[in-house]
Amino acid sequence: MIDTHLLQTVAAVVREGSFERAAQRLHLTPSAVSQRVRLLEDRLGTALILRGLPCTATEAGAKLCRHADMVGLLEDELRRQLPATASASTAHSSLRIAVNADSLATWFLPALAEMAQAGTAWLDVTVADQDQTAEGLRRGHVLAAVTSQAAAVPGCRSRKLGALRYVATASPRFMARWFGRGVNAESLAVAPSLVFNQDDRLQERWVKRLLRRSLALPAHRLPSSDAFVRAALADMGWGMNPLPLVAPLLASGALVELLPDKPLDVPLYWQVVMLDVPLLDELSACVLRHARLELS
Amino acid sequence: MIDTHLLQTVAAVVREGSFERAAQRLHLTPSAVSQRVRLLEDRLGTALILRGLPCTATEAGAKLCRHADMVGLLEDELRRQLPATASASTAHSSLRIAVNADSLATWFLPALAEMAQAGTAWLDVTVADQDQTAEGLRRGHVLAAVTSQAAAVPGCRSRKLGALRYVATASPRFMARWFGRGVNAESLAVAPSLVFNQDDRLQERWVKRLLRRSLALPAHRLPSSDAFVRAALADMGWGMNPLPLVAPLLASGALVELLPDKPLDVPLYWQVVMLDVPLLDELSACVLRHARLELS
Repeated sequence: MIDTHLLQTVAAVVREGSFERAAQRLHLTPSAVSQRVRLLEDRLGTALILRGLPCTATEAGAKLCRHADMVGLLEDELRRQLPATASASTAHSSLRIAVNADSLATWFLPALAEMAQAGTAWLDVTVADQDQTAEGLRRGHVLAAVTSQAAAVPGCRSRKLGALRYVATASPRFMARWFGRGVNAESLAVAPSLVFNQDDRLQERWVKRLLRRSLALPAHRLPSSDAFVRAALADMGWGMNPLPLVAPLLASGALVELLPDKPLDVPLYWQVVMLDVPLLDELSACVLRHARLELS
Repeated sequence: MIDTHLLQTVAAVVREGSFERAAQRLHLTPSAVSQRVRLLEDRLGTALILRGLPCTATEAGAKLCRHADMVGLLEDELRRQLPATASASTAHSSLRIAVNADSLATWFLPALAEMAQAGTAWLDVTVADQDQTAEGLRRGHVLAAVTSQAAAVPGCRSRKLGALRYVATASPRFMARWFGRGVNAESLAVAPSLVFNQDDRLQERWVKRLLRRSLALPAHRLPSSDAFVRAALADMGWGMNPLPLVAPLLASGALVELLPDKPLDVPLYWQVVMLDVPLLDELSACVLRHARLELS
């Protein structure tokens, strides 16, 4: 079996991003951390850490970190079953979860908050596009992910969450300025749109469905769900916003839909590593319950 | 001089993240894009694109992209001075800007919206920690950045923006549960804190100033300014929140300060490449004006 101290040391370097910070966390000197990492790299015959600012895991290192996470979860479960050790330890597992920004901005945060209330795990959330989160799971960077990919990642279980509904929205002033003569190929070709980042195809997908052809949209790039909404309110552009986030603004008239009854539904899935521990089951149950409340 | 078509092609691949998407934007076939990229790589004798998902710029490629941006800005300015070409073209420059998430969530968005109103440039915003944004400028990924680094990046001008004020905040319920006996080393060692990501040291800095020593804080990681606030409201943890974002919540009592009169000010600087074109001057003037309104 892999030496626990070495395993924990590598995981801490990846988590903290530096040998110095890992040393601080583990109450070691940085050179002791460095020695341990090199020792495990020698034993496994492969590089685990890419030295840099920040330090990151190699492909093998990421898999080792996931292994460390899973051992941690199994150990937590063991402690729960051994009352003598349960009271002696206050350690919690860390659950690394990847989620798309719009889910985090809407239905997913209440699920996290509920899990946090239970106090049984530290939640370590990373944000990526819904098409990229499965990759984090595949590479071993996370234990669970909200993703647009239905097919189960090897070693994981996939469950349907429902669809996050998006509506094409803009401010009334923006509508008057750019879409006074209708929402069509001519106006969409010149009206500033908003895109989240280079992975965000939602605006183009909506336009393609509307016009039945692709159109290159002029766009500002703004990688934040809430900034996206604020930018729409400030007449900066039109964009696809998640309905749960903008429903109150649509109700008040601060934002309007470009066209009525033309939503775009993005189906989402919950994928978790196959590891039979109650903590992951609790997390999944909590996530699925909140998804049912907010997703279509 | 570098062939314009080759330059634009490389810039498009980096911007879009793939040869296919760049081809679509430029109305070329993917193989034509690939040929152009290879041709410029041969001529310059260095790799420019790291082929992958997504395609990214090499160090040399990033500098070439910045060069393309700067040529674009100079050309826009030239067109403005040549009325015959000004009317013939609707092309705009793209301004790539790096900003920290908390600025984007507060004072920076109104500045972007004002720039967008002028309609003279497409804004391409990336988000990074305030200690990392200067790196984007150094590497050529962006033309301008909001950063905590006062010293000018080579080739750039640095100006003081003011300080973004942070306050340690939590919900009243969280305070009662975790800090009922005071905010001190004992309670801070067990109360769940929130950190943005591994680069976020604000909570630790605040605690270190308070206790006059370092303390490893138990923490959930949540990389979104608005999710941070929502998590605090949902009793998930305490965290350093930017005052402009939580002022209304402090006023209503939905959030409270852990300790009164213990803010943490983070000085911010505006760094821009030295290129004497009115568009960058307009952007700087707009950013500095909005900073004065909201920063301390």
